[in-house]
Amino acid sequence: MSDITFRDAREDDLQTLVALLADDDIAEGREQAKGDLLPAYSAAFDDMAKSPDNRILVAEQDGDIIGSLQIVYVPGLSRQGAKRAIIESVRVSSKARGQNIGTLLMKEAIAQARAAGCKLVQLTSDKRRTRAHLFYRRLGFIQSHEGFKLDL
Amino acid sequence: MSDITFRDAREDDLQTLVALLADDDIAEGREQAKGDLLPAYSAAFDDMAKSPDNRILVAEQDGDIIGSLQIVYVPGLSRQGAKRAIIESVRVSSKARGQNIGTLLMKEAIAQARAAGCKLVQLTSDKRRTRAHLFYRRLGFIQSHEGFKLDL
Repeated sequence: MSDITFRDAREDDLQTLVALLADDDIAEGREQAKGDLLPAYSAAFDDMAKSPDNRILVAEQDGDIIGSLQIVYVPGLSRQGAKRAIIESVRVSSKARGQNIGTLLMKEAIAQARAAGCKLVQLTSDKRRTRAHLFYRRLGFIQSHEGFKLDL
Repeated sequence: MSDITFRDAREDDLQTLVALLADDDIAEGREQAKGDLLPAYSAAFDDMAKSPDNRILVAEQDGDIIGSLQIVYVPGLSRQGAKRAIIESVRVSSKARGQNIGTLLMKEAIAQARAAGCKLVQLTSDKRRTRAHLFYRRLGFIQSHEGFKLDL
């Protein structure tokens, strides 16, 4: 197994990133990964690129992207003015599962959050993803909250 | 009962906002609301003020702040490049509870998220806040996720 490296996503990763987002039982119906890239994906990438506090971290092996997640750094007053990192859309390629890549990717994200001065990392995970919940608990996360979503 | 109005928080609201954050059974031990304002609160407010995507919305009645919440607009690739609004730190003053102010405040936040082009509003709530969970479900939120936190 070759080494895994981490870097920020680039615009030319976009098609791969969308395919990775769709490489998931729950999320696949929400994305449009086939055919030409939807302009909305490019627009969202451009919006993210404008903010130093909103990034996509990718894991690479042998030149292939095998995992990704979004990190958002959020300053706020709560907890004595603690900055927090919110992690969204964690994915490991179905071809690369079972190699501990999710753990390495999350540990890299946590290290980056700490280096950015965050006091807290938080995320939500669909209630159907029971294996993911175990995974996050093993990483030290406390499953203390209920997560709510409202589609607009 | 006088009308309730909404506006963005200002720096001179800070002491009141910190007191409101601490006016809560679960969070009170996490804040330092007595004595001089901690510099970390001012620093966090300044960091938030730098970002147009991170705001504190306050509800006012008769010149008093009686509720607040934080809204963070987050662009991302997921869900076909959908921008989402993350809501944090929802508070209604203990003096003002039972007047439906939480509902008005949340509806204002949802309306602002929609106006900002968000496709989704999301939040987490401590598992101990069972009344709040009912409140969010009544507002139309789906309690679909588990929420995880890691202190750094």
